[in-house]
Amino acid sequence: MKSELLVLLPLLADAARAETLAYFRGGALATQSKDLDGFDPVTIADRAAEQAIRALLAQHRSDDGILGEEFGATEGASGLTWVLDPIDGTRGYISGTPTWGTLIALHDGAAPVLGLIDQPYIGERFIGGLGIAQLEGRHGVRDLRTSGTTDLSDALIFTTFPEVGTEAERTAFNAVARRCKLTRYGMDCYAYALLALGQIDLVIEAGLNAYDIQAPIAVIEAAGGVVTDWQGKPVDQGGRAVAAATPELHAAALEILKDA
Amino acid sequence: MKSELLVLLPLLADAARAETLAYFRGGALATQSKDLDGFDPVTIADRAAEQAIRALLAQHRSDDGILGEEFGATEGASGLTWVLDPIDGTRGYISGTPTWGTLIALHDGAAPVLGLIDQPYIGERFIGGLGIAQLEGRHGVRDLRTSGTTDLSDALIFTTFPEVGTEAERTAFNAVARRCKLTRYGMDCYAYALLALGQIDLVIEAGLNAYDIQAPIAVIEAAGGVVTDWQGKPVDQGGRAVAAATPELHAAALEILKDA
Repeated sequence: MKSELLVLLPLLADAARAETLAYFRGGALATQSKDLDGFDPVTIADRAAEQAIRALLAQHRSDDGILGEEFGATEGASGLTWVLDPIDGTRGYISGTPTWGTLIALHDGAAPVLGLIDQPYIGERFIGGLGIAQLEGRHGVRDLRTSGTTDLSDALIFTTFPEVGTEAERTAFNAVARRCKLTRYGMDCYAYALLALGQIDLVIEAGLNAYDIQAPIAVIEAAGGVVTDWQGKPVDQGGRAVAAATPELHAAALEILKDA
Repeated sequence: MKSELLVLLPLLADAARAETLAYFRGGALATQSKDLDGFDPVTIADRAAEQAIRALLAQHRSDDGILGEEFGATEGASGLTWVLDPIDGTRGYISGTPTWGTLIALHDGAAPVLGLIDQPYIGERFIGGLGIAQLEGRHGVRDLRTSGTTDLSDALIFTTFPEVGTEAERTAFNAVARRCKLTRYGMDCYAYALLALGQIDLVIEAGLNAYDIQAPIAVIEAAGGVVTDWQGKPVDQGGRAVAAATPELHAAALEILKDA
């Protein structure tokens, strides 16, 4: 089954790519869609991409459940659930930044066991789980491996929006960020991919849904990192996430975040 | 001369690409360079890329002046000056984000008349001036054209860092951003490219050097946009820049910024 899943996963991402790229940056279908009942291109692309993935799953994995951002939950019988965010980072998508992504995860009832972060415009795909941790992109294939950073003072930290979430969440993020080497914003799910790649060391976010974080969890854990909520508990059902390159760095961040 | 310059410009960017990509994301030369006299990969890549461009200019345009971030000013006799930032966005480069770029501009003594913003990792090149305004990338060639946005309330606004510059500069930026539809951060010079592409509408920054802004000026003006300092004066020598999709949007932003 493992090899079957690893064959299917990129096909799911390919199917979504065709839809998301068709509407990205005024793509072929973006202009005509502007007149359709007030629907904007990103909504159409989001729904079309999830439908494309669901159609393949119906064909190849009809016993599995599905939880998708756009079409909700579909019951399954296998104990496995596909968790889908066809366009994570819709504001990035609208702005034309190549920071949004298609997130696909497979949850076994206990945890995400396989995840994929796809950036269609750049043509990069980060895959983790079932013994795999790799980036496939236009510059070739390479193993994913988180950095060895253990101290906050050496860490590059990312979050998408400076406001983070609530006032208390922003304050907690800033308390960690203040001790880090460099803070950057605006990368959407691509920040998690950069963490798995060993380029950055910490990503802290709040207000996440299950479909926002399950693929990053699988990819980052496969690459050697640690992802939990701000109390150190599983975050696969969403909420506040802290993703770190090493257990030591994770513990240091948690020490500051846990009282938020 | 115009066609000669348009042939040379991409060759300059190609020469820089070879150097910047060699050290990006732990590229072939990044690891070995860590032991060299405390030099970090980004410094080595920055210098090597500028040297590569300078070598081609010495061969093909020996009468022109050069102003480069890394090696300063070289006098010329032609009245033309090449203005170079081999890696704009070094913090993005270090973090692995595909938002840094190589900036190349040609200044005729009055203004930048030709500019190029190159994002080597994605493989995108934004060129403007001498009758050209186009993006060459892996998804093909397309014309650059700024959006038609005239009202702040419809505008997507970008700056690289939330702190912007001084406290007064941050306050002025926020006064504009508060009236915009969406504010995003973290794109380095890529934000100017997205403005020329018509994806976003405003970029406001402070603390710029001449080599940070001349290529964006040429590219954005060729695409129909307006770039000045916060008082509406030329910003080709650096300082505080406001780049807007339309004259109307530029005027609306300036009205708020001019007293900062």
